[in-house]
Amino acid sequence: MKAKVTVMLKSGVLDPQGEAVRHALGALGFDGVEGVRQGKLIELDLASGTTQADVTAMCERLLANTVIESYSIEM
Amino acid sequence: MKAKVTVMLKSGVLDPQGEAVRHALGALGFDGVEGVRQGKLIELDLASGTTQADVTAMCERLLANTVIESYSIEM
Repeated sequence: MKAKVTVMLKSGVLDPQGEAVRHALGALGFDGVEGVRQGKLIELDLASGTTQADVTAMCERLLANTVIESYSIEM
Repeated sequence: MKAKVTVMLKSGVLDPQGEAVRHALGALGFDGVEGVRQGKLIELDLASGTTQADVTAMCERLLANTVIESYSIEM
């Protein structure tokens, strides 16, 4: 069983990594990139019987820093 | 206009970051996590008129290291 967890910085939280990518794309001549946010995608290979509640607990305890990051789960 | 770029290590390429997450989840008592792969999710805010070909060029030139990473684009 597979689960995909997406972790992004909350809007309003400064994203220096995304900003660096935006700057680098501009320097390479890619115009029209107005904003970049970079987050994490975590693919979990789970034993069958693992519930969405388990994955939520993983996010809350380890995968996301919920003070500054939001997460979404796709199973 | 928004585009989402997902960059993952190719299968077969060692993913120490994912391995560390798998180990940490086990240490926290989450059984049944058989594998973890960690990648990047890049959200681009683009000027209208930017084509998928432009985003592909961004991936090839900057966002992904195509030797070891694969990418997918969602627009």
